[in-house]
Amino acid sequence: MYKYSHGGNAAFESGNEDIIDLSANINPLGIPDKVRDAIIGEIPRILAYPDSSSGKLRKKLAEFENVDPDWLFCGNGASDIIFRLPRVLQAEKVLITAPTFSDYERAADSFGSKIIYHALSAANAFDMDKGFIDAVQAEKPDLVYICNPNNPTGRLTDARFIKDLLDSCRENEAFLAVDECFLEFTEKAEDCTSKDFLSDYPKLVILKAFTKLFTMPGVRLGYAICSDPAIIDSFYFHGPDWPVSNLAQAAGIAALDDADRFVRATVEYVSKQRKHIENELSKLGCRTFESSANYVFFQSPFSFDLREELNKEGIRIRSCSNYRALDDSYYRIAVSTEENNAKLLSAMEKIAASRQLMN
Amino acid sequence: MYKYSHGGNAAFESGNEDIIDLSANINPLGIPDKVRDAIIGEIPRILAYPDSSSGKLRKKLAEFENVDPDWLFCGNGASDIIFRLPRVLQAEKVLITAPTFSDYERAADSFGSKIIYHALSAANAFDMDKGFIDAVQAEKPDLVYICNPNNPTGRLTDARFIKDLLDSCRENEAFLAVDECFLEFTEKAEDCTSKDFLSDYPKLVILKAFTKLFTMPGVRLGYAICSDPAIIDSFYFHGPDWPVSNLAQAAGIAALDDADRFVRATVEYVSKQRKHIENELSKLGCRTFESSANYVFFQSPFSFDLREELNKEGIRIRSCSNYRALDDSYYRIAVSTEENNAKLLSAMEKIAASRQLMN
Repeated sequence: MYKYSHGGNAAFESGNEDIIDLSANINPLGIPDKVRDAIIGEIPRILAYPDSSSGKLRKKLAEFENVDPDWLFCGNGASDIIFRLPRVLQAEKVLITAPTFSDYERAADSFGSKIIYHALSAANAFDMDKGFIDAVQAEKPDLVYICNPNNPTGRLTDARFIKDLLDSCRENEAFLAVDECFLEFTEKAEDCTSKDFLSDYPKLVILKAFTKLFTMPGVRLGYAICSDPAIIDSFYFHGPDWPVSNLAQAAGIAALDDADRFVRATVEYVSKQRKHIENELSKLGCRTFESSANYVFFQSPFSFDLREELNKEGIRIRSCSNYRALDDSYYRIAVSTEENNAKLLSAMEKIAASRQLMN
Repeated sequence: MYKYSHGGNAAFESGNEDIIDLSANINPLGIPDKVRDAIIGEIPRILAYPDSSSGKLRKKLAEFENVDPDWLFCGNGASDIIFRLPRVLQAEKVLITAPTFSDYERAADSFGSKIIYHALSAANAFDMDKGFIDAVQAEKPDLVYICNPNNPTGRLTDARFIKDLLDSCRENEAFLAVDECFLEFTEKAEDCTSKDFLSDYPKLVILKAFTKLFTMPGVRLGYAICSDPAIIDSFYFHGPDWPVSNLAQAAGIAALDDADRFVRATVEYVSKQRKHIENELSKLGCRTFESSANYVFFQSPFSFDLREELNKEGIRIRSCSNYRALDDSYYRIAVSTEENNAKLLSAMEKIAASRQLMN
C-alpha cells in the first residue's frame, strides 16, 4: 500500500474523536456558514455531469481574485493542479527548494522530470535569497516551483524578490509556479502575492485552494491562475473532463459569497493565535521562525521525540523529519482554535517540565 | 477554451430546465435513496482531509465486487483512473478499438503514448473478432483497451473472447484494461465480466464507476480493480493523494448499501425500455445494434441532421460523428425513464412523418 506521507490522518482513524489534530493546516474558524446549505441544495443535481469548466464558480472566483475568468482552471484540489502541471508545461527539468511541500517532487517524479533541489539554509531562516536566482541561471530548469509562504516553514517571499525571480525565469525561458495556498492567512498577502505579475508574465502560474482557507479539505477544490490561454487549455487537456464535482462547485460558490469578511476574520484570529504560540514555544526553548501562515514551524531543543510525547497527550503534530533538508528536530503545528492551542501549549509545558525533572 | 466533447451538457446551460437530455447515459431510476442522507451526514466532516485510500468504501466495494479490498483503487471518477493508467503502466504503445470512448485516446495522448487504432466493422455490428487479437500479436502494444459493453455501440464481448485476448496479451507482455462502466446494465453481466480472470492475470485492470449505475455523475467516483499490488501502489503514486472527496466516499458507501436490489431493478427497467426503443427505431427505418448498455446506438436512414431536429423538440441526443470510424449517420441515445423515452419516440415519429410529407 502506497504510504501516505502528509498530516491530517487522525480524522478517519476509528476511535479518535477526541484527538486534537494539528498535523494538517486547516482554518480554525471552520466551514463558512453558507457552504453547508449549498451542498445540500446541490444534491438533487448530482444526477447530471458537472460543468466541466466550472463556469459559474470561475466567474465568482474571478471577482474574488480580481482576474479574468478565462485565466482560471479549477481542479480536484490544489494537488490535482500540482500533478497536471509538469505535463501541462512539459517540464523536463524542475527546480524546487528544500524544504518545501513534497507533492511538487512527486508530481515531477510521476511525469519523469529531472529534479534539482536548492537547499535553503537554517542560518538564513530557510528564506530564499539570490542563491536561488543563481540556481535558475545555472541549471536552466523548465519549471521553477516556490511556495509562498513556504510549507513547512511559513516564511514569506516578497513581491520584489519574486519580480527578480520572474525576470530570471523569463531570461531562461522557464515557467514559475507560485503556490499561494496559504497566502491568504497573512496580513501581508497584498505585498507578497504574484497576481500583479500575471499579465506581464504569461509563464507565471499561481496555485491556490479552497482547502485550507475555507476549511473544506474534504470537498477537494483548488485552482490555477495563468494569463496564457494555451496553458489554461492544456490544463483541461491533461486530465479528466470533470475534475470538480457538482458538490464542490456549489461549495466553492457559497464560500466566496462572504469571502472578504471571512478572510479578514481569519487573518485577525490566526495572526493573534500564531504569535501567541510562537511566543510560548520560544519560552520553552524552541526556535521559531515568525511564520506567516496558519501553522507554526519550530526546532525543538529536546532530545526526545516531541511528536511521540504529544501523541500520548492526544495531540497530533507534524514531524518534519521527512522533509528534505530538515531533520527530526523540526516540527510543524497548525494554528487551531484558542482552546486547542491552549491545550497544546499546556501539554508542551507538562512534557518539558517532566523531562527536566527526570534529567 | 478546451472543447468539451462528451454528452451531458444540458444541465448546466441556463434556462434549459425542460430539456430532455439523452446525450449522457445515466440510470433512469435516479439516485439511490440513501445517498442523499449520506452526503448531508458527511458535511460536518468536510473540515478534515479525506481518507486518501478510501478504506471504508473499499471494504464495502470489495463485498459488492467480491474481490480483495487491496485490489481496489478509488479515484475522482472513472476518467481519473483512465488518465492515471498510461502513467501507471508506463504504456508507450496503446491499442484501442475504433469506435470507443474518446478518453482512452486523450489519456494516452497526455502521456505521449503511440496509439494504434483497430477499426471495428459496421458489417460485423462493430463487434470485436479474431482480427483484434491478431493486432495484439502484430503491434505488440504495452496496453490494450477494451470497453465492455462498448461505448457508443453497446455491444458486449463475452468472457471466452476476453480469455483469448488475455492470453495473447500475456504472450506479448501487454496489459489489458477492460472498462466495465456499463456492464451492470445488462442481464448478461455475469457471463461477460473479466473479474474471474483477475487472480490469474495480474496484468488485467478493470475500470468501473458509480457515475452511471448509481446515477451520480455529479459526485465523481470511479475505481480500478487489479490483483497486482504494485499496480495498485502505482495508482496511488501517479496522482493526488486525496482523489476522492469525503462526500463522494460517503455517497459511494450509501449507494452500496442497497446495491443488489438497485442493480436488479435497474437491469429490469433498462432492458425493457431499451428493447422498446430499439423496436420503435427499427420501425422508423433505423439500423439498431442490440445494445447491452443503458443506451441505444443506431444508424439513421435520414439525410437530415437528426440531432438538430430533436434539439428543436427539446431533446438532446449524442451525434457519433466525432467518434473514430463512425460518421454523422450514427447516434447514441440514453435509455431514460418510460416518460422521456415515449417523448423521444413520438418526436422521432413526428420528424420522420413531416420529412416524408416534404419529400
